Amino acid sequence: MRIDLNSDLGEGYGPWALGDDASMLEVVSTANIACGFHAGDPRIMRATVRLARERGVAVGAHPGYQDLIGFGRRRLPGITVGEVESLVAYQVGALAAICALEGHPMTHVKTHGALGNVCADDDAMALAVGRAIRAVDPKLAYMVMPGTATARAADSLGLTVINEIYADRTYADSFNLSPRSEPGSVLHDPDLVLQRVMAMVAEGCLTSTSGKRLTVPISSICVHGDTPGAVAMARRLRQGLEAAGWTIASSRG
Amino acid sequence: MRIDLNSDLGEGYGPWALGDDASMLEVVSTANIACGFHAGDPRIMRATVRLARERGVAVGAHPGYQDLIGFGRRRLPGITVGEVESLVAYQVGALAAICALEGHPMTHVKTHGALGNVCADDDAMALAVGRAIRAVDPKLAYMVMPGTATARAADSLGLTVINEIYADRTYADSFNLSPRSEPGSVLHDPDLVLQRVMAMVAEGCLTSTSGKRLTVPISSICVHGDTPGAVAMARRLRQGLEAAGWTIASSRG
Amino acid sequence: MRIDLNSDLGEGYGPWALGDDASMLEVVSTANIACGFHAGDPRIMRATVRLARERGVAVGAHPGYQDLIGFGRRRLPGITVGEVESLVAYQVGALAAICALEGHPMTHVKTHGALGNVCADDDAMALAVGRAIRAVDPKLAYMVMPGTATARAADSLGLTVINEIYADRTYADSFNLSPRSEPGSVLHDPDLVLQRVMAMVAEGCLTSTSGKRLTVPISSICVHGDTPGAVAMARRLRQGLEAAGWTIASSRG
Amino acid sequence: MRIDLNSDLGEGYGPWALGDDASMLEVVSTANIACGFHAGDPRIMRATVRLARERGVAVGAHPGYQDLIGFGRRRLPGITVGEVESLVAYQVGALAAICALEGHPMTHVKTHGALGNVCADDDAMALAVGRAIRAVDPKLAYMVMPGTATARAADSLGLTVINEIYADRTYADSFNLSPRSEPGSVLHDPDLVLQRVMAMVAEGCLTSTSGKRLTVPISSICVHGDTPGAVAMARRLRQGLEAAGWTIASSRG
Repeated sequence: MRIDLNSDLGEGYGPWALGDDASMLEVVSTANIACGFHAGDPRIMRATVRLARERGVAVGAHPGYQDLIGFGRRRLPGITVGEVESLVAYQVGALAAICALEGHPMTHVKTHGALGNVCADDDAMALAVGRAIRAVDPKLAYMVMPGTATARAADSLGLTVINEIYADRTYADSFNLSPRSEPGSVLHDPDLVLQRVMAMVAEGCLTSTSGKRLTVPISSICVHGDTPGAVAMARRLRQGLEAAGWTIASSRG
Repeated sequence: MRIDLNSDLGEGYGPWALGDDASMLEVVSTANIACGFHAGDPRIMRATVRLARERGVAVGAHPGYQDLIGFGRRRLPGITVGEVESLVAYQVGALAAICALEGHPMTHVKTHGALGNVCADDDAMALAVGRAIRAVDPKLAYMVMPGTATARAADSLGLTVINEIYADRTYADSFNLSPRSEPGSVLHDPDLVLQRVMAMVAEGCLTSTSGKRLTVPISSICVHGDTPGAVAMARRLRQGLEAAGWTIASSRG
Repeated sequence: MRIDLNSDLGEGYGPWALGDDASMLEVVSTANIACGFHAGDPRIMRATVRLARERGVAVGAHPGYQDLIGFGRRRLPGITVGEVESLVAYQVGALAAICALEGHPMTHVKTHGALGNVCADDDAMALAVGRAIRAVDPKLAYMVMPGTATARAADSLGLTVINEIYADRTYADSFNLSPRSEPGSVLHDPDLVLQRVMAMVAEGCLTSTSGKRLTVPISSICVHGDTPGAVAMARRLRQGLEAAGWTIASSRG
Repeated sequence: MRIDLNSDLGEGYGPWALGDDASMLEVVSTANIACGFHAGDPRIMRATVRLARERGVAVGAHPGYQDLIGFGRRRLPGITVGEVESLVAYQVGALAAICALEGHPMTHVKTHGALGNVCADDDAMALAVGRAIRAVDPKLAYMVMPGTATARAADSLGLTVINEIYADRTYADSFNLSPRSEPGSVLHDPDLVLQRVMAMVAEGCLTSTSGKRLTVPISSICVHGDTPGAVAMARRLRQGLEAAGWTIASSRG
């Protein structure tokens, strides 16, 4: 009866902020922190790690493609497996160093945006991410989407796995996320989201939009931090889970 | 009778190259590798580390200000001590991760351009760099300019020190480099450079342009990699030193 | 009894927004639009020009130093007069083209941040900006700070001048803005700001913090768009001015 | 018996150069100048325009995707027709302003890399580029690949057309370039290149690799500036054409 709530934070850049990190850090138990390639810079990374430490929130690296203006959401063509290894290692190593400065150890890695989508479908890319994680620190966990190439990669490399579900997104039969462009793929009603999440964590089971089921231990729930209503949604989820007897805590605590 | 030759390499970006890294890696025993802020990107960093490993050349991080278009050579105003800690930790951690991917451990850190100039004169900044190095790995050496704030910072933090001299630059009385804008501050004649370097390493002594002397053990000689004639200058230096009985080898070998 | 209200808008970048442009465009009569160097990108520039056209708001270029992460607020060292000419011409030409796409002609140019501060004090830099404006279109107005080098440059080049005052900032004796670091240099009380502005426009006179006075026709009032309370401050100012009989309209209408 | 030789120049960035622009400007009659999105910055753009003016070489804008690290060679997903209009207008307007500073009028526009490849195949994108050109200045010519969507767009918008062939590339049946990944698609033998170009310009006919022919007046020949041997290839071509009685001159002269 213990579950983690995670959110992607530190997604500002220079003078720009995105979302209300301070409020989200009051709600979640784990923060995935942007590492400077799709968002984030050393100053923001450090401020976010510090706030997470003060709040007792676990932190992980959230590496993405080198695409600031596209926020890492574009599937950039022509990036090789070796380049993914390099860009993930770079970003994970960078956040590890910021965490060392703040005395708050990094616990895990979760890929961002298009890089994450690619890795969910492509074993070679998911393995490249896993090798980069292992190179920085084999004790880091790989936060994965159960049933996808990321989960297979973490297993085959012997990395600690954090199985994550998305609170407000629906699943394709591959158990990758349904594309945002598909109507209904992003849920906006907090009560519906809560009900859906409660069913998933209670049963230990994901269901695709076509009804395909995947039984899997679920250890973390992703709530988005950058949309209007994000904080309210996260709070509703936390309250609902706690009311049902769940303790919200990082899986690496 | 053992001395290190170091050069700043991996200073391209995306489609652009700078200098002839492959040739320099045949001559030097240590490479300081740009980490993405003033030059370098994950692909170039990895290719440079790999080539260094294959040539038996030691590698260190060469962090600079976040100033691609200015190549890290501008003294950016308003950057705080805390921000220097963060940006140095970020870059050193990033290169450490790339080195881990390649199985070629990073040995040291040397600051680039304006960041280096600032740190030579400013104890608080030099200490910030030292703390960032120590946070990533306290066994990393701090490559410093003897007689400056960088040397004092490395000592006070208990970091391993690499005392470096510049083959083709003259010294101010602070033992910081004379500004490039000062006539004669950059030497171009390979024979003059060799003669000057031989005197410094033989005596273990630096001399400023006004004649001030600093007695100090010298462990590394910096040769530039990005100027016309750089490779020829480096080769001349190596041959001259070897002819005089010096062995060229990394101090961390 | 006609006065212009201007604000700096379009200061987002890629996924990031800054301030509430849609609301500000309901209040001001002139928008100074970021041109991609300190903020802004082609998509944001065009969306902002379109909204300004729909609201009947005049638009001008708001060029800054090439310093995204510092938001153009840092006095970058080593930038020459020729480089300022080039970077201003580039940005003004870029916005002129976006305006041409939208069929909403650009009326003027106002420099941003550190570039503006430098030009207020440095005749050569202010003239460089003026020459860049003239090269793109000699009918463009130069929005200047009365009493400073920008005003002298506009005069000496024969450019149309828009004399601007700042609603919420105090003046040094040079009639450049008092630095933000100086206590009291930024005013936050909307009533105080309104009272101050009313006095300036009624008398046609600026007063420095030491009491030095400059009599000058004032044609535009700058209200900031990127601070909390910016919209409320702008609305208060507009209402107060209108209540006193002023018509808010672009000086180039 | 008059033909234009064009090359893509000004493709450095900040401290980095690409190719030998000074030598190419001794050989070609037209320079297509990078505008800051895939390469180029205001300083480099201005220096290149100035050198072109001094050599009597015509200049045009060479806009590309906003992708510095990928050099504009990646087909970025998700860019809309409206965004292409904006990004092309931005870049063309920027170079127009730099040209105005130097008193050397811009004559034409040619798209770069992936943007060019997309426009050759996609009428909507080619028209977006054409509308951006027309918005900046309807007298600017559109340098197009005969037989492709770019040529159709220029015609339908009533823009002046410059029909361009590539000296060292082969053609698909669409008369777009054969992909670089296809063996033999890039020619390296200067004599073969000359012979091929001579045949094309003499007959006014392009031939695809499968033998499909397109009869069309050819007004310009593109020679690459950024490859080893580029200058030698361009010189050989110029000498060969002149020996055969052709005068090398810009079509807009």
